[in-house]
Amino acid sequence: MGLSTAFTELFGVEHPIALAPMGGSAGGALAAAVSRGGGLGLLGSGNGDREWLARELPVLAGACAGKPWGIGFQTWAIDDAAIARALEQRPAAVMLSFGDPGPFAERVRSAGTALILQVTDLEEARRAVDLGADVIVAQGTEAGGHGARHGRSTLPFVPVVADLAAPVLAAGGIADGRGVAAALALGAAGALLGTRFQATTEALVAPATARAIVEGRGEDTERSRVLDLARGSQWPAQYTARTLGHPFLDAWRGREDELAADPHARQAYREAVTRGEIPPLPQWAGEGIDLIDDLPSAAELVGVLGAQAEEALARAGRR
Amino acid sequence: MGLSTAFTELFGVEHPIALAPMGGSAGGALAAAVSRGGGLGLLGSGNGDREWLARELPVLAGACAGKPWGIGFQTWAIDDAAIARALEQRPAAVMLSFGDPGPFAERVRSAGTALILQVTDLEEARRAVDLGADVIVAQGTEAGGHGARHGRSTLPFVPVVADLAAPVLAAGGIADGRGVAAALALGAAGALLGTRFQATTEALVAPATARAIVEGRGEDTERSRVLDLARGSQWPAQYTARTLGHPFLDAWRGREDELAADPHARQAYREAVTRGEIPPLPQWAGEGIDLIDDLPSAAELVGVLGAQAEEALARAGRR
Repeated sequence: MGLSTAFTELFGVEHPIALAPMGGSAGGALAAAVSRGGGLGLLGSGNGDREWLARELPVLAGACAGKPWGIGFQTWAIDDAAIARALEQRPAAVMLSFGDPGPFAERVRSAGTALILQVTDLEEARRAVDLGADVIVAQGTEAGGHGARHGRSTLPFVPVVADLAAPVLAAGGIADGRGVAAALALGAAGALLGTRFQATTEALVAPATARAIVEGRGEDTERSRVLDLARGSQWPAQYTARTLGHPFLDAWRGREDELAADPHARQAYREAVTRGEIPPLPQWAGEGIDLIDDLPSAAELVGVLGAQAEEALARAGRR
Repeated sequence: MGLSTAFTELFGVEHPIALAPMGGSAGGALAAAVSRGGGLGLLGSGNGDREWLARELPVLAGACAGKPWGIGFQTWAIDDAAIARALEQRPAAVMLSFGDPGPFAERVRSAGTALILQVTDLEEARRAVDLGADVIVAQGTEAGGHGARHGRSTLPFVPVVADLAAPVLAAGGIADGRGVAAALALGAAGALLGTRFQATTEALVAPATARAIVEGRGEDTERSRVLDLARGSQWPAQYTARTLGHPFLDAWRGREDELAADPHARQAYREAVTRGEIPPLPQWAGEGIDLIDDLPSAAELVGVLGAQAEEALARAGRR
């Protein structure tokens, strides 16, 4: 019978499931697979890097089977030109996360493109409503990768945002159909999943990272700024990232200010990468990884998640 | 039609809802109200204090209308005698939280009383299964009051525990029927609510605290050990408590070791209580308080939550 929500109706997709536009790893093949599978694939464009988009957009266009898709940006990292380049491709949606979407909102909306705004607290959620967001993603701190240092947890946060207005997607800690079902029960119109889609055949992820996600446990993940500081990332200080364990986390946890002021530590990080002692990138992963134990095709996974969610709702409270 | 789960069947209750046995505030009147309303009321017996039980048990017995009820303990704070005194009252359930339930589990089970064990991570959950728990409460860090310092979030934690065995109650961040519905969608057999029941007419809570819960926001709550240290509480170091804001939190956040070694700070806390500048007890509250905006009768609230949960499940994915 399928699940029908304000989100599936808005985009004409089969399942209330979206791909988190993870910078780098949500490339053309993964976004296309999620869209082809009946969800909404969102390309992880990060700062809107021209070369990356020039490589990934044709992959996406060639594999999405004409289904709707979108592009996601890190708001703090982009300028008008990045939005303009995205809109030229006529995506069904542009998603903005982390930073002030004010300067870009009207431009997206006036192009007739759906505006998806990701929020991490109630103040951002109210602002997203004021800016006319077509969809609000309510992200909990369980999420893998970046998020607000002082964010909210998914379960109590989603219903509060759902009470405001606009269809809401729940994000953070959702890695199977039961999580999607819970999102809908909380009043959301769907779920946005990141880590679950990292562990698929179409993700642009190092094989060791995909394996680490499959093998890891939620309690092995941790929110921190340490790895951004160690690798000299430009992420603003109000954002931390949830990752799997890492020797630099153990070495610098709680000494972030000292690390930020220490160029030798950044040098040591680069050298350790060169020597192959640590991976080039942190292994971003959410708290839901206990629920991930395989490496399926993302295109097939979307349908599985949808069916699991439907089953979970049908079973809930009906013994 | 009503919701039916392994939990409602086990206890013969109408709604898949239990009262968190909050030390002190979940007294006889509140536990009785929740049971009378069709949930499972659990008396918050803390360390099993004789005088408190002697006062509250008759209140409970007089008002529960013959419905099943239970008693909850802080495991680290009790001895065999406390369990024995509880079992004399022939409760339907004994719930043990925070600490090693090993020494008490068999005694509860052999009395024919249902054993409810609250867990905060997967290791504790597996141990609860090994000890033969009849119900496992999977508590997320969103919960008000005490919990593990390194605990898990409710949304990703509950389905993992549900996969182990035994009926699971979800706890932490649940304050309306949508949260109860989400718990069931995640595979739980019900939800255990604390803060929501603090803001009811039957709770043993200072009126100012009930008001603060109604008026407060989730982002005003914080997990910390500071207030336990400041008031000289015996809670072990691995537990923090989520509370509303407090001047001592602002003064000592991040300096817990220093506070623990400073008798003058504890003296200052006592004096501030005496002068009426701070309340006698911390205002324990969970992250779900954005969803609490009234002070109903707990007995009526149980039915409202059950009906809301049923409606949320019926509406989910059915636009």
